Amino acid sequence: MTALSGQPPVSPALAATLNAERSRVNAALAGVAVQAVAGAPAALAEPMRYALATPGKRIRPILCVSAWRAFRPGDVPDAVYRLAAAVEIVHTYSLVHDDLPCMDDDPVRRGRPAVHAKFGPARATLAGAALIPAAVQVLDAAAAELRVKAATRGALVVELSRAGGAAGMVGGQLLDLESEGRPATAELLERIHSRKTGALLAAALRIGALAAGASEAELAAVSAYGEAIGLAFQIVDDVLDVTGDEASLGKTAGKDESSGKTTYPALFGIDGARSLAASLVADAISALHAGGIHSPELEAIAHYVVERTS
Amino acid sequence: MTALSGQPPVSPALAATLNAERSRVNAALAGVAVQAVAGAPAALAEPMRYALATPGKRIRPILCVSAWRAFRPGDVPDAVYRLAAAVEIVHTYSLVHDDLPCMDDDPVRRGRPAVHAKFGPARATLAGAALIPAAVQVLDAAAAELRVKAATRGALVVELSRAGGAAGMVGGQLLDLESEGRPATAELLERIHSRKTGALLAAALRIGALAAGASEAELAAVSAYGEAIGLAFQIVDDVLDVTGDEASLGKTAGKDESSGKTTYPALFGIDGARSLAASLVADAISALHAGGIHSPELEAIAHYVVERTS
Repeated sequence: MTALSGQPPVSPALAATLNAERSRVNAALAGVAVQAVAGAPAALAEPMRYALATPGKRIRPILCVSAWRAFRPGDVPDAVYRLAAAVEIVHTYSLVHDDLPCMDDDPVRRGRPAVHAKFGPARATLAGAALIPAAVQVLDAAAAELRVKAATRGALVVELSRAGGAAGMVGGQLLDLESEGRPATAELLERIHSRKTGALLAAALRIGALAAGASEAELAAVSAYGEAIGLAFQIVDDVLDVTGDEASLGKTAGKDESSGKTTYPALFGIDGARSLAASLVADAISALHAGGIHSPELEAIAHYVVERTS
Repeated sequence: MTALSGQPPVSPALAATLNAERSRVNAALAGVAVQAVAGAPAALAEPMRYALATPGKRIRPILCVSAWRAFRPGDVPDAVYRLAAAVEIVHTYSLVHDDLPCMDDDPVRRGRPAVHAKFGPARATLAGAALIPAAVQVLDAAAAELRVKAATRGALVVELSRAGGAAGMVGGQLLDLESEGRPATAELLERIHSRKTGALLAAALRIGALAAGASEAELAAVSAYGEAIGLAFQIVDDVLDVTGDEASLGKTAGKDESSGKTTYPALFGIDGARSLAASLVADAISALHAGGIHSPELEAIAHYVVERTS
């Protein structure tokens, strides 16, 4: 299958790196899942564990670790992966709630029954909500293990809370719900996705960078990179919804059109959407350079975002 | 109306103190509400603000401030009330979600339409979830203002997250939902309410005490006090549901029986439930004394918990 940017598809070297990173993230997630459900009644622990075991690209935690590595080259301590797993927990909560009958009403997530389809909407709502404070606890424990400066520890919690809250992901989901069945402008789509996807992607990067001791200017650079690739990521998702096949997507293809959501291909055409994604990737890489950040890894991930086929 | 303990009803002096405290808490809540909805789209900010304006006894924030005062007598800085308001935000989120159609399906909360009844279940679910990270941000900002020690600042966030999460409030709500329509034992009722009510009440006290610099032994004492009055509070709620009138309760009386929930009066009779609540209050006060804590205010609040008529 041809990659979206018209360039060669994801290189074998990058694919191997991403796989290795994904394995370490998954191991960290399995570890922190035990911590996340500690003290929970069995009937709550079960849907929480099920949600945390949802397969995924793990793009957010991989970005978090890559941001750390940009400032602290060399071996990455396991605790950094737990820090990164906290970000994935917040992402997981959002998937659980987005799929609820009162939201997108989607019975399938990544080829498995959605949490509400398996455990009912009450347990899904509770399990999703319980993941938010669990993520905060996992983040703070990892930060303590990494012995980050005390002021930074508070800043990490605030980063995650802001991105996962009203000004970030939750606000984006609300704008997205409201826009269904109505014509949307490019400006509104950007407002939706900068909150729904961009905020947590940028927070993942900022959290890795903050923990590694990045400066304010460096934080601003990784934020700009994160916001740009976050939007590119969403544009590519929209394109794949039109051009992809269900087996590789793990979800219903063509769902955007049937649900009446405005998408980038609907606004700009497939080719126009691809060009927009490619130019955002270029912006993301420029932002890193402008901030004096040399990270072949972050650059490769930016290209992967548009070159992926699922 | 006779008070539940058979003692004189709430004294005019305590009633005046509680009213004054409630006013300061409400002022703090109104202030932090602005912070909580910052950056949120209007359609999300609206249900969040509506939820935060739900009238209430403010027992949790009042306990938080009283715990602070037990260790730092004298004028209480405004930031302590904002710290306390963070606890009330978590309580507020739980009310929003508990009332949802997929949970208790209650259209009325404190004499007003429940959030989902006014804004629909999607906006209510999102607004409730957004209150959790908002509470974390409000807590951390208040802790920073109070210049609490860096290690304590992390501990405060962990306290609130633990109480508001799977091992605390959310776990309790799940057990409560599961117990509906089934006979419950006293042991199960205690498991439910120690999580659903006790955990956040104890956290409110621990947060006030931690911020004020209490020792481990003092923290253990306020925890034991909080857990005991938390359970007493719930028992009295159950009794008032049977004996109270709707106007003073602000909710449907007799609702527990019609919803098939097992309650303390159902297990122990009205008088048995009252005695149990009174003995828990005695335990709570003993715990304070055993921890060397002299706080006429916390003792008076313990009595108020059983003497209140609404």
